[in-house]
Amino acid sequence: MKKRDVYLDNMPLEEAKKLFFEELREAGVLKPREPEILDVRKALGRITAEPVFAKISSPHYHAAAMDGIAVAAKDTFGADESNPIRLKEGINFKYVDTGDPLPPGCDTVIMIEEIHPVGDGEVEIIKPCSPWDNLRGIGEDIVATELIVPENHRLRPQDLGAILAGGHVQVAVRRKPVVAIIPTGTELVSPGMTLKPGDIIEYNSSVLAGFVEEWGGQVLVMEKVEDDYEKIRQRVKEALERADAVIINAGSSAGSEDYTSSCIAELGKLLVHGVAIRPGKPVMLGRIGDKPVLGIPGYPVSAALTMNLFVKPLLYLMQGIPAPVPEKIEAVMSRRVVSSIGTEEFLRVKLGRIGERVCASPLSRGAGVIMSMVRADGIVRIPALKEGLEAGERVEVELLRPAYEIENTVVITGSHDITLDLLASEVKKYYPELNVSSAHVGSMGGIMALKRGEAHMAGMHLLDLDTGEYNVPYLKRYLPERGIVLVNLVRRQQGIMVQKGNPKGIKGIEDLKRPDVLFINRQRGAGTRLLLDLKLKELGISPHEIRGYDREEYTHMAVAAAVAGGSADAGLGILAAANALDLDFIPVSPEEYDLAIPEEFYHLDSVKKMLSVINTAEFKKKVEALGGYDTRDTGKIIYQGVGVSQGRFR
Amino acid sequence: MKKRDVYLDNMPLEEAKKLFFEELREAGVLKPREPEILDVRKALGRITAEPVFAKISSPHYHAAAMDGIAVAAKDTFGADESNPIRLKEGINFKYVDTGDPLPPGCDTVIMIEEIHPVGDGEVEIIKPCSPWDNLRGIGEDIVATELIVPENHRLRPQDLGAILAGGHVQVAVRRKPVVAIIPTGTELVSPGMTLKPGDIIEYNSSVLAGFVEEWGGQVLVMEKVEDDYEKIRQRVKEALERADAVIINAGSSAGSEDYTSSCIAELGKLLVHGVAIRPGKPVMLGRIGDKPVLGIPGYPVSAALTMNLFVKPLLYLMQGIPAPVPEKIEAVMSRRVVSSIGTEEFLRVKLGRIGERVCASPLSRGAGVIMSMVRADGIVRIPALKEGLEAGERVEVELLRPAYEIENTVVITGSHDITLDLLASEVKKYYPELNVSSAHVGSMGGIMALKRGEAHMAGMHLLDLDTGEYNVPYLKRYLPERGIVLVNLVRRQQGIMVQKGNPKGIKGIEDLKRPDVLFINRQRGAGTRLLLDLKLKELGISPHEIRGYDREEYTHMAVAAAVAGGSADAGLGILAAANALDLDFIPVSPEEYDLAIPEEFYHLDSVKKMLSVINTAEFKKKVEALGGYDTRDTGKIIYQGVGVSQGRFR
Repeated sequence: MKKRDVYLDNMPLEEAKKLFFEELREAGVLKPREPEILDVRKALGRITAEPVFAKISSPHYHAAAMDGIAVAAKDTFGADESNPIRLKEGINFKYVDTGDPLPPGCDTVIMIEEIHPVGDGEVEIIKPCSPWDNLRGIGEDIVATELIVPENHRLRPQDLGAILAGGHVQVAVRRKPVVAIIPTGTELVSPGMTLKPGDIIEYNSSVLAGFVEEWGGQVLVMEKVEDDYEKIRQRVKEALERADAVIINAGSSAGSEDYTSSCIAELGKLLVHGVAIRPGKPVMLGRIGDKPVLGIPGYPVSAALTMNLFVKPLLYLMQGIPAPVPEKIEAVMSRRVVSSIGTEEFLRVKLGRIGERVCASPLSRGAGVIMSMVRADGIVRIPALKEGLEAGERVEVELLRPAYEIENTVVITGSHDITLDLLASEVKKYYPELNVSSAHVGSMGGIMALKRGEAHMAGMHLLDLDTGEYNVPYLKRYLPERGIVLVNLVRRQQGIMVQKGNPKGIKGIEDLKRPDVLFINRQRGAGTRLLLDLKLKELGISPHEIRGYDREEYTHMAVAAAVAGGSADAGLGILAAANALDLDFIPVSPEEYDLAIPEEFYHLDSVKKMLSVINTAEFKKKVEALGGYDTRDTGKIIYQGVGVSQGRFR
Repeated sequence: MKKRDVYLDNMPLEEAKKLFFEELREAGVLKPREPEILDVRKALGRITAEPVFAKISSPHYHAAAMDGIAVAAKDTFGADESNPIRLKEGINFKYVDTGDPLPPGCDTVIMIEEIHPVGDGEVEIIKPCSPWDNLRGIGEDIVATELIVPENHRLRPQDLGAILAGGHVQVAVRRKPVVAIIPTGTELVSPGMTLKPGDIIEYNSSVLAGFVEEWGGQVLVMEKVEDDYEKIRQRVKEALERADAVIINAGSSAGSEDYTSSCIAELGKLLVHGVAIRPGKPVMLGRIGDKPVLGIPGYPVSAALTMNLFVKPLLYLMQGIPAPVPEKIEAVMSRRVVSSIGTEEFLRVKLGRIGERVCASPLSRGAGVIMSMVRADGIVRIPALKEGLEAGERVEVELLRPAYEIENTVVITGSHDITLDLLASEVKKYYPELNVSSAHVGSMGGIMALKRGEAHMAGMHLLDLDTGEYNVPYLKRYLPERGIVLVNLVRRQQGIMVQKGNPKGIKGIEDLKRPDVLFINRQRGAGTRLLLDLKLKELGISPHEIRGYDREEYTHMAVAAAVAGGSADAGLGILAAANALDLDFIPVSPEEYDLAIPEEFYHLDSVKKMLSVINTAEFKKKVEALGGYDTRDTGKIIYQGVGVSQGRFR
């Protein structure tokens, strides 16, 4: 059995970067790659390896700039309306089209609109012209020897045109730096293989390869190698022969890390192993000969982050151009986040403009949650010396998508329902420029988000225990001063999800208190949890009697997954979630799931578009197909709260 | 002979766009292309054709999240420092590495750091643990059936990872729309061919192809076709069979335009021919069957602009995603620009941050000047109903490069010298993140630009007629209240440039008044023009005696090109320009060319870096190699104006 005997540094990020890049600079590794000669027409997006000076002028001859006749200006002097001058073709003039060379003896062009053919090859003109009218002189665009583009310039379409116009057929560009990626880990299996417990789909190399390509490098994905020191060492040596830089994707277990770090240290120099960042701490930075070699951690978020911090600047330096600077905006944190002193954290956030400000909601912080990178709109850095971020604190966000996309995002916060996923996808189909982002914080969380101005709408299914009415009583109680439009999204069946075949024979809520039943609950404020509490109250059962009452998940699907995986026997949730994971379902109660939209957002163009999608027959059809949903009121306004919003206090 | 019998519309841009896109929408052309199925690993940058839902959960089993031992939590209850609990391998625990599946009977993992092996396969623990510690439960990252990415989503590296993790090997993406480009024009020759007058290098197709690629399309460049109606018609029909959209690059002459418009009208529907924009007026918008067909004008700037206005939105619609929105910034016009009422002009501008504001300087407005697209930092739209822009007017600029590059630009305005091109290229080599932008407005223009706060420095060679001193008297006279640092760039030889072999036998300034000599002058305010005026004064020659005194060019190279092209016999300029175009040179006077830098900019980091490049031996060596330059004072401070800048008025 392997034991963790790897000593990890906890080096501050700036120190690690300095150490790594200074070592590489001193070793002469950071220079741009040598030039390669390309056909100009194949050089789009490449970086010039030397300045390009024009070999010829453009135009390379005096060219007519209009369709008309070429003449000697002196032949036109004195012409006016009462004394037109006649010119004869072949003697005084020659017809020219735009781009034709100026014939000998001529020094100007008269536009075709200004001549009056009078037959016999003669034309009349009624005004004189100056020399060099309607001409493009030699070099008007480009003069031979002139600089067209400097060295270290990324070639755009117009640059290709100018370089061709300047008489070049080829151009010297930087060779793309080749980056070898070595996946390591005995547990890795290729995508598409049948999986058994413990197998991990090897997808990191595709993510890393994608980054390398986007940063202008050329990728060489090596065959994956198991956790065997000699084999890893051999694969690294092969990679060193073929690439400008080597990335060992080090697996996440200590054994795998150990091999990688030892291998770098044996073949070259391991400069850093362990940086005070989260995620990404176990990154390794080293050099073997004149090649940078990095151990990139196995957890996908750690991998993506450390690639951005170390490989991105490296690749741009190897191309001679500065790395693009990410766009940044200021946002306000929607929730408090606690962070460890001494570690710089890179927090993934969802963003949305709500009225005057952009709100940032933290996503899952787990290093293994690649969906947090898929869902994230940006990254907030929490400095090493800060203990975290307060709710309402202003933060700078490095954007992962353009700012205008953030502006076009409808933010739904509150209870989770699978139809929200469906809605997000359908909206994107009808309105590609529009985004729907949903954060799952439970129904009460959604109301609080509306109160704090952090969402455009809240998804909720809150049953009032006194009136039996859904949602409206809660809006009146918690948002009495806001004008709210409540729109039904769906009616849905809530019930108990149990494993296929119902092995514990659960028949209803009362069985949840059985000692052999392990329950999994939703978080406080979730409508589903309120429903459970109501039912328990009706049956006179105390929450303490239920094993697992305190274990909380944030979504229906997470509860379903816990049941499917066997870590719980039962959980309350919706039929669609049970169906999705092939669970049995014992109906408990139907309920209304509505969207509460403050009036000021109800009139937003983006919100109107989203509501129009909800009202399509196609959306309703897809919802019904999920099972457990009733769309008879979908898209209807259930309630429009007048509040004080239309009165004198607003 | 062809005659212009094409009737051009002058349709407002918005009307033309509406007409074109509504016609295409009604004809069902604007829908995204049909899906194609790709290996996920090859799908970077592609657009999803349908939503991707997870097929499997990730992790797909309960996985250890740490290296350690897997146990049943209940076996640990009661452990503390005084009552350690012993566990036996194989009976109470199993060693697990990160990622290993949770063994049967276990429900938690204890980190390796927290166990104390005591030999005989036994370990001691000194605290109890809770169920589900240090575990990644099934679906922690992705739950089966969950939405990973919606339809119409551009795939980023992290998306590929999540899709693979969700159990997919393939993904349905939009087929790239194929755009055929047909270059037309008898005058076109391929790059690299020997040129004769009238030949035009066919480079437009490379520019257009580059745009199509950058916008996600696939390019099909067809063989060029001469101005022959039947052949154009045939080529268009071939293109229609192979592409989703056809671009006829229509040549710039009326004949070529005529063929193109007739061909579209005959085979389909010519919707628009002539839009009230500058450049780009003669653009044609049409439809043949279910294919959009566009006649893109031949002048390169018209071509680039009309591609942006019509083909870019078209291509994005055909992919189901919104076109990226260009970044915009506010700037202040440095010069007045007059524009025609009724035409929407797209003005190319150079930008630079000078102190608090960004200054926009207009570039050449010629539709044939592709270098204006190469040099441009952005585009200012002058609405059809405006007569132009005033100097100092605030304008919105659509950026052609990221805003941070504008921030890192040193703006040199004033007299032109070839060493400024060289400097721009060398600076980019030493400091890839730094840009040097030079605008050529003559020495006096440079001083005025400093006065108005539109440049970081001015390049000048102004001879004071009273003292014989260069530059300093002018700075004292025109910028008396500014602290200025004057740095020598070069000393250079001014002289008369004449055609090779000096066919007119010009020996000095006095020959310029000969009636058989046609002169070409520099613009008012240019140091070279002042030098001429001084020499004329000394010789008692009136400017009126010189033929061509009023014909002005803005750069040495433009003057040299006019002489080389034979449109003038002589012009005053520098030896380097004469050498570059193989002209003879009659020396007139050496002069100082200096950079005047206001103190507040002299201390900018960017300016310091630029000056450090001027001081390198390599730069000086390259300058000397041009001929006609003396670098003995290059980089030296010639004068430091105290002014009132360090006194009490500042």
